[in-house]
Amino acid sequence: MIRKVVLSENDLPDRWYNIVADLPSELPPALHPRTLAPLAPDDLLPLLPSGVVEQEFSRERWIEIPDQVRDLYRIWRPSPMYRATRLERALDTPARIYFKYEGVSPAGSHKPNTAVPQAYYAKQDNVKRLTSETGAGQWGSALSFAGSLFGLDVTVYMVRSSYDQKPYRKMLMSTWGADVHPSPSDRTESGRAALAADPDSPGSIGVAISEAVQDALSRDDTRFALGSISNNVLLHQTVIGLEARKQLEIFDDYPDVVIGCVGGGSGYAGLAYPFLRDRLAGHRTGTRFVAVEPDACPSLTRGAYAYDYPDTASLGPVLPMYTLGHNFMPAPIHAGGLRHHGSSPTMGVLVEHGLIQARSYAQRDIFSAAVTFARNEGFVMAPESAHGVRGAIDEALAAREAGEERVILTHVSGHGHFDMAAYESYLAGTLDDHQPSQEQITAALAELPAAAALV
Amino acid sequence: MIRKVVLSENDLPDRWYNIVADLPSELPPALHPRTLAPLAPDDLLPLLPSGVVEQEFSRERWIEIPDQVRDLYRIWRPSPMYRATRLERALDTPARIYFKYEGVSPAGSHKPNTAVPQAYYAKQDNVKRLTSETGAGQWGSALSFAGSLFGLDVTVYMVRSSYDQKPYRKMLMSTWGADVHPSPSDRTESGRAALAADPDSPGSIGVAISEAVQDALSRDDTRFALGSISNNVLLHQTVIGLEARKQLEIFDDYPDVVIGCVGGGSGYAGLAYPFLRDRLAGHRTGTRFVAVEPDACPSLTRGAYAYDYPDTASLGPVLPMYTLGHNFMPAPIHAGGLRHHGSSPTMGVLVEHGLIQARSYAQRDIFSAAVTFARNEGFVMAPESAHGVRGAIDEALAAREAGEERVILTHVSGHGHFDMAAYESYLAGTLDDHQPSQEQITAALAELPAAAALV
Repeated sequence: MIRKVVLSENDLPDRWYNIVADLPSELPPALHPRTLAPLAPDDLLPLLPSGVVEQEFSRERWIEIPDQVRDLYRIWRPSPMYRATRLERALDTPARIYFKYEGVSPAGSHKPNTAVPQAYYAKQDNVKRLTSETGAGQWGSALSFAGSLFGLDVTVYMVRSSYDQKPYRKMLMSTWGADVHPSPSDRTESGRAALAADPDSPGSIGVAISEAVQDALSRDDTRFALGSISNNVLLHQTVIGLEARKQLEIFDDYPDVVIGCVGGGSGYAGLAYPFLRDRLAGHRTGTRFVAVEPDACPSLTRGAYAYDYPDTASLGPVLPMYTLGHNFMPAPIHAGGLRHHGSSPTMGVLVEHGLIQARSYAQRDIFSAAVTFARNEGFVMAPESAHGVRGAIDEALAAREAGEERVILTHVSGHGHFDMAAYESYLAGTLDDHQPSQEQITAALAELPAAAALV
Repeated sequence: MIRKVVLSENDLPDRWYNIVADLPSELPPALHPRTLAPLAPDDLLPLLPSGVVEQEFSRERWIEIPDQVRDLYRIWRPSPMYRATRLERALDTPARIYFKYEGVSPAGSHKPNTAVPQAYYAKQDNVKRLTSETGAGQWGSALSFAGSLFGLDVTVYMVRSSYDQKPYRKMLMSTWGADVHPSPSDRTESGRAALAADPDSPGSIGVAISEAVQDALSRDDTRFALGSISNNVLLHQTVIGLEARKQLEIFDDYPDVVIGCVGGGSGYAGLAYPFLRDRLAGHRTGTRFVAVEPDACPSLTRGAYAYDYPDTASLGPVLPMYTLGHNFMPAPIHAGGLRHHGSSPTMGVLVEHGLIQARSYAQRDIFSAAVTFARNEGFVMAPESAHGVRGAIDEALAAREAGEERVILTHVSGHGHFDMAAYESYLAGTLDDHQPSQEQITAALAELPAAAALV
């Protein structure tokens, strides 16, 4: 029996898939953060490389991957796809569980899939420096890696709770030559405002984005790079699912359910959108798509579908998305990469149409899944990925109850070698679960930009 | 141009290569630790699984890999082989540099190549529990991973300096269910003796081996597993070089020099021995083989070729090897995996015959190579691996001086994601170099077992 499929370099996709071309209803436009008028490409040019801006507005279904990007993808792509036979046996399930493993990249996660093209487009524009935010550090290290390949300076604002929990991530970024600051920092206006409000603030991705945006706008030679949410990031991540489709063909299988973790949603979109394309095109209508988020930051399961800012200081474009409000401050759970208050606009449309379903899990539940996985399949994964794997395990258990041969596809978006302190807390029984109260969510949602409503 | 070659699962070797069959002179026998008579297989049966003992004494050139071991190898093997084109460009060298990357395994290093078969042979004997030593933690985590696959309990004695420097490694082992103790510990006689001599002892691999051996001998259901040095470990690691040979054929190239890091020597032997086979068989006589060790633990460059114990408490078989003396206490450098006082017996014969040359580097030199590599090739490697890569870079620079197209093969035996504190010290300029004084080496060599001499 085949256990793993590794494609050759020749099977690396040569185009990204842009789901904007196939959405079941029009993607509501992003709005200008001050005027709330629909955003034009020119509005973004001071902030983002022009190639990125073009992709952000593109409605082309397929977008060619530049040769140099494809060449750099070869450092770690195509990534392997596994059938989790030992996990299936341990669960005593008739289900077939497949996982795409993105932990093989130099940064240890799927984030370089978009960091490399973003750095490429910056270089094309003769940009000298990139700024960005990072939660758990996966995105920041991916951008540091990509920047080093193109000789770009990189400055990263890292959410303080993760900066403190995961010092090795910071050192990894430094090894690639990046400049890393805990956020909120005193380097930007929005950082200083956050510190004034709470000198011990654990930070949030929203604040860190504001800092990175302000920094980028303050210098002509600098642009901003975003790790999730925006159309172009999700676009770049579709290499995951495009490879996965080919690999499942070799396994001679097709998923009944595609399930994975969602923060901003780029990793899950990367896996799922090429399969959603089949469904949107009218084939394979039986496949379910399930997005899994943490109880502590439940934008899809408890948030509103509304226009909101991606960042706390209201500097970024106003986006149509599932959101908890841009001032929502999630608990400092270990899955720092899933602590954004909103998820991506295209995912919002798909959830509204019932094409993607959402569920959430508590922190201890996802670590229990991660440990079961590690002791059967070997790989110790990032806590973010464990949300999707928890979901996959529950699907497999449901299939056992139902006595059905369910085909389950998930992804392990990164390894957990930087997250061992979290595993230790879990194994020691000292890990807490976190759920925001309804009052906390209601209060944060009251601060949505009132003049911009999604119909 | 091809940048990377990933073989399919079908290309996974089905036999290990045993260099004992091809050595240019007889391998001197291992001796019983108390009688100093040549060791018989029966002497080892209380300590090691019977399948391991059989391989330890085997003179068969090729040994079949059991199906179940091959199946588990598929979790991460075949591992990729890269041509380091960006590094070549940065060095402005006409040399072609290839590296085999072993960081893709669940434990992040090459060590599972032998941990899995050792756990397999233990399971065949109905052993319930394995003990072992670990330096930097790569071996201990590999054995913990392998133990979890076979449902075996694993107890690891981890050298205290690494236990303190690399807490995440300990947590990784716990995640796979292992029981980890800093060594010297108070759990064994030899640990207590070491603590009595120096309550603040940083430990050494020699002491940790003694502890693990004593623990294993104290229980009928327990056996010991060794991470390097012994013939069977080097045998298992040859999957690296056997794959590498096939991969270089696809690159249409053959190495002029095979260079890599050596502690006990199993990773380097794994890479080099299948190429040495070509040379020993009379083909490819122009290839050089270079073993690189740390200045702080220079067994091949400053040690004696002599019979010595593999462990401090003189419990293990007396082995013919390059050694600094079993009481030699190396400085607590970050390349904890290279801190053993001796290297493997087969390597000793090859060095004696001039078939392998040795050189050593200071700690700061190897980190400078690792950072150069990370900023060009992406991967952040373990400090152990950086010794070989430092050597490869120097070979490439020498080729530039000589204006020759040298083909250089090395291996990145593990990723450095558990070693970020060491990188931070290097980047902060606070890293020290360490060299033992001649007096220290002379004193340690004075304690060799006098009754056993190598002619």
